[in-house]
Amino acid sequence: MAELPLPDLDPTSDRAVFRQIADHIRTAIEQGVLAEGDKVPSEARLMQHYGVARMTIRNALQVLQGEGLTVAEHGRGVFVRSHPPVRRLASDRFARRHREQGKAAFIAETEGAGGKPSVDSIAITEERASADVAERLGLSAEDQVIRRSRRYLINGQPVETAVSYIPAEIARGTRIEQPDSGPGGIYARLEELGHRLDHFVEEIRSRMPLRDEVRALKLAPGVPVFHLVRTAYDTDGRAVEVCDTVMSSDAYVLSYELPAR
Amino acid sequence: MAELPLPDLDPTSDRAVFRQIADHIRTAIEQGVLAEGDKVPSEARLMQHYGVARMTIRNALQVLQGEGLTVAEHGRGVFVRSHPPVRRLASDRFARRHREQGKAAFIAETEGAGGKPSVDSIAITEERASADVAERLGLSAEDQVIRRSRRYLINGQPVETAVSYIPAEIARGTRIEQPDSGPGGIYARLEELGHRLDHFVEEIRSRMPLRDEVRALKLAPGVPVFHLVRTAYDTDGRAVEVCDTVMSSDAYVLSYELPAR
Repeated sequence: MAELPLPDLDPTSDRAVFRQIADHIRTAIEQGVLAEGDKVPSEARLMQHYGVARMTIRNALQVLQGEGLTVAEHGRGVFVRSHPPVRRLASDRFARRHREQGKAAFIAETEGAGGKPSVDSIAITEERASADVAERLGLSAEDQVIRRSRRYLINGQPVETAVSYIPAEIARGTRIEQPDSGPGGIYARLEELGHRLDHFVEEIRSRMPLRDEVRALKLAPGVPVFHLVRTAYDTDGRAVEVCDTVMSSDAYVLSYELPAR
Repeated sequence: MAELPLPDLDPTSDRAVFRQIADHIRTAIEQGVLAEGDKVPSEARLMQHYGVARMTIRNALQVLQGEGLTVAEHGRGVFVRSHPPVRRLASDRFARRHREQGKAAFIAETEGAGGKPSVDSIAITEERASADVAERLGLSAEDQVIRRSRRYLINGQPVETAVSYIPAEIARGTRIEQPDSGPGGIYARLEELGHRLDHFVEEIRSRMPLRDEVRALKLAPGVPVFHLVRTAYDTDGRAVEVCDTVMSSDAYVLSYELPAR
C-alpha cells in the first residue's frame, strides 16, 4: 500500500479519534500536501491506515465537509474543494463612468475580469412593499413597489440572486418594468427619470444558505452566503431602490474603502 | 399528546422523508411558530408524530443544525438558535473624531451600543512579515513587523479575533509594542508618529470557521465567519498597518457607503 501523507493516531491524546483524523487531513489541505481538486484517500485506505471502523472515518470526513474543505462526489469519492475564480467587488463599482459606458455593474465587472456574464430567471411584478422594504424606501404600508428579481451567472455558474424594489410611483410605466431595462441598467434609468444618484449604503450579513438558496446557487455543503442589502439614494437624499441579494461566498470578495477623517 | 405545530408527511412527495420533516420545522421557525430559544419537539415526540425511525428524525435535525437554525444542547434537547445582539459596523467607524475622544474603535462602538467591551489574549511579537503581509505593506521579504494579536468580547462573549501587523521600522520601541497601546489605540499612535491616516481598504470574505476559530469565538454549529483584512494608508499613500480579523457572523452586520459618482 502506497504511503499516505498522514501521520498515525496519537494513542495518548484525549482528542476523539475521528477528530484526530479530521485534523490530519485538514493539516494536509492547509499545507498543500492535498491540493484543490485532489482526491482524499478512500474510506478503505483510511480505515486500513488508521485501523479504525468505517463509521469513524465517515465522521472525520463529515467534519471536513462541514468546514467547506472537502466535497463528496457520488460514486467517485471525496475531493479537496476547488474554489472557483473569485470576483472582487470594488467600492467604485457603481461609479457613473461605468453606467455611462452603457453597461450594468455586473456585466461590466465580469467582462473586465475575463468572465462571461449572464442573467436569467428575470421576473418583474408590482406588489405592496413589505414592512422592511417600505421602511428602507421611506414608503408607507399601502405603497406599491416594482419588484425585479433575477439570477446572475458567470461562465454559466450561478453566483448571485438579486431582488430590486423601486417605488412604483417612480418606475411604473417606464423601462424599469421591462425585462431588458436598457443600457446601464436600472440605475441609468433612474437617473434619466431625474433621480441623480448620490450614494449607496450596503449592509452585509453572512449566514448559511437556506434550501432554496442552495438550489438556486448550486452551493456545495459548507459554503455560506453573503446576504447584502443595498439602498440607493438620489441627490435629494431620497431612497430610490433597495436591492436584496444573496451571493455565494465562494465567488466573491467584497472590497470597500473607508475614510480616516 | 399535545398538538405539534407541524403538518403531516406528504406520502405522494418524492422528497425524502427526513427532508420533509426538516422543511416543516424550518417553516415553523421562519414563521415564528417556533421562536428563538424555543425547544424543538423531542425526538420521541417527532417519531410519534411522523411515525418514523429515530435515525430519520436525527437526519432531519442535522439538516437544520447545518443551516444554523437550531442548536443541540447536550442532555437538554434541540433549540431554535438565539441570535446575540448584533453589532453594526458603520463606515465612519475609523473617523478621527472617535480617536480624538481617546477610544479605540471597538471600545467606542460597543459602549455606544450599550454593551460592555473587553479585550483579552493580547500578544505582541516582532517577526518577519509573511509574503501576504509584506505585499500588502509594501515591504520586502526580509522586513520585520510588529504583530499584535488580541480577542474582542462583548458582555464577556467573544465576537472577534484580530491580528495587526505594523512595519517594525515604524513601531519598534514605541507604545505600539505595549499591551496597552494608549488612548485612541494604535491608529492614534501612528498619527502621533507622523503617519496621518488617509483611508482604509477592507476586504471581506465569508467562510466556515476552522477548528481553532470555533474554539476562540465559541461558535455554534452552522455559524460562518467574516474574514476581514483591513489595510490602513497614510496621507503619503503608504500602507502602515494590516489588520487580519475573524468575526462571528452572528455578532456583526457590516455597513458601508459607496459613491455613485
